[in-house]
Amino acid sequence: MRALLLSDQLSFSDGVSTPTPSIGEALVQVAQAGICNTDLELVRGYMGFAGIPGHEFVGRLVEVPPGLCDESGQPLTVGCRVVAEINCSPPGGPQLPALRAHDPKRTTLGIFRRNGAFAEYLTVPAQNLHRVPDAVSDDQAIFVEPLAAALQILEQVKLAPTHRVAVLGDGKLGLLCSQVLGQGSAAVVWAIGKHPRKLALLDGCKGITTCLLGEVAARAPNLFDVVVECTGSPAGLEQALSLLRPRGTLVLKSTYAPPSLGEDPARSRLAQTQLQQALTKVVIDEICVMGSRCGPFGAALRLLAEGRVSVEPMIHSRFRLEDGVAAFRAAAEPGVLKVVLTP
Amino acid sequence: MRALLLSDQLSFSDGVSTPTPSIGEALVQVAQAGICNTDLELVRGYMGFAGIPGHEFVGRLVEVPPGLCDESGQPLTVGCRVVAEINCSPPGGPQLPALRAHDPKRTTLGIFRRNGAFAEYLTVPAQNLHRVPDAVSDDQAIFVEPLAAALQILEQVKLAPTHRVAVLGDGKLGLLCSQVLGQGSAAVVWAIGKHPRKLALLDGCKGITTCLLGEVAARAPNLFDVVVECTGSPAGLEQALSLLRPRGTLVLKSTYAPPSLGEDPARSRLAQTQLQQALTKVVIDEICVMGSRCGPFGAALRLLAEGRVSVEPMIHSRFRLEDGVAAFRAAAEPGVLKVVLTP
Repeated sequence: MRALLLSDQLSFSDGVSTPTPSIGEALVQVAQAGICNTDLELVRGYMGFAGIPGHEFVGRLVEVPPGLCDESGQPLTVGCRVVAEINCSPPGGPQLPALRAHDPKRTTLGIFRRNGAFAEYLTVPAQNLHRVPDAVSDDQAIFVEPLAAALQILEQVKLAPTHRVAVLGDGKLGLLCSQVLGQGSAAVVWAIGKHPRKLALLDGCKGITTCLLGEVAARAPNLFDVVVECTGSPAGLEQALSLLRPRGTLVLKSTYAPPSLGEDPARSRLAQTQLQQALTKVVIDEICVMGSRCGPFGAALRLLAEGRVSVEPMIHSRFRLEDGVAAFRAAAEPGVLKVVLTP
Repeated sequence: MRALLLSDQLSFSDGVSTPTPSIGEALVQVAQAGICNTDLELVRGYMGFAGIPGHEFVGRLVEVPPGLCDESGQPLTVGCRVVAEINCSPPGGPQLPALRAHDPKRTTLGIFRRNGAFAEYLTVPAQNLHRVPDAVSDDQAIFVEPLAAALQILEQVKLAPTHRVAVLGDGKLGLLCSQVLGQGSAAVVWAIGKHPRKLALLDGCKGITTCLLGEVAARAPNLFDVVVECTGSPAGLEQALSLLRPRGTLVLKSTYAPPSLGEDPARSRLAQTQLQQALTKVVIDEICVMGSRCGPFGAALRLLAEGRVSVEPMIHSRFRLEDGVAAFRAAAEPGVLKVVLTP
């Protein structure tokens, strides 16, 4: 089959073996997949991943274990449209998705020791599958995984109606977090970023005020109760803390590759100093820092089916799998949101 | 009066003006004071402090505003033995200690913009004072401030009877945290450090298992639900995370001066990499990192009065104020716990 392969660098191949499902696994034909910031970080060395990347996808079932049902007890059969949670436990592992996300024996689709979705086919444990309702398009469905990650914040942090929340970062995940938090509580949500065109995608979303980073001090001089760090950059931590009140909650969403060996020593020293100062501020201000990762797929599918979240305007461009390397280059360009790959 | 002064370096002076209390302040004659790790960090540049350091002390009231009472409504008058919370709000600031600890206008005794207790006399806001009960000796009383900081963990984190807790670091604060957590819940508490003689001070304390850092993997192979980081070293963060289960809670207690300008670039790069990897682990494992600082003096005095915490064995040596520079040198020696200064 055709697939993108990451080893030392990313390449396209049309001679990859089509995978065979193991016991308890399904074979899925990929309809389309989205490129995520994590994919870009993988290419920079994050997780030391080698294999087929890609974890945001929608596809159709080609082979399924007998008796497989969805959350409503309806059969999931060949031809059904599906998405899949990315944390995969070996057989006999935990049943609950929230536990699978932290199973020490887990593999992770396209991120850690398991091939992903930038291919014609992939295999996934059947228990990870979710049926995509008819009301959710293929374009919407590739956002289920990051939307679930945004919803995870509401699983972890109790937002109160009096809370002022800042979402820092106007990338894909930031825009999803803003929308989820803007409607997931009666809290006031500020979406803060550097790109007017990205922030404009939130125009008309109830409960959200958009603000350029440089204007926060003037427009929102009071500190926030909760700050969600979605910048995808190590510098985001310091910015996030500067917006947060003492005893506030900082939700950390960004992960990134470690600094390269060739990094300028003066920059390393500065980065070390800033990180240590950030940790000192966490202690002095008694901040609660909450790491936050994968979330509930079922809730994400519901929000999309009910039209409560707008995701399709984030799609910037579409590439064929053959042009995957160019697609990655496009996705890394400043100002670009979601790039879609179609086998 | 006689006092220790910190500017570029620490020195003793016998020509410092005795302070005059402002409105709402009391004048306290220092009976004795303890040297804390924070004091050692101040000398290394932490907080950029200049003035008289010292924030762990017991003394007698020399001048008090009229009508001052303690928590029980009993008058606090000249001659009373007192300790004082270290966060000082200007007049009209918050009344509750928990709010004063985060008052943006606060000064902090011997740490930030306010002279401290390594002197014959100091002034403190009268609302910060606590009477020391007869059952608490002067030697015990200098531990009220760090013991309150240990108790602050129980204000912030709910410990459950099934929890396994690790306190990392066998310095003064680590030993206090172990004792507080060992009896503050039905949780299992492991005190983990590098110094058998320090850990031995916890022998006989109910609910505490002591363990050398190098033996943790063999003796406690299962990850902990809560880890309290009291090492006072930047490297403690990584160690603490290595002991913590996914979705566990990491309590951060350590603060320290930023790296010196002369730090080796290779070490800076390593430190930067380790800190970034630690933050990535916080996200992936969905760790809750809780910064924790000052705590409740009243509860600390109760524990000491009831003999529920053993602190006096931590006293290593005593110095006169005149020998304060030597006292700081002694306090910085490996294996040394509390060094006491007496005016």
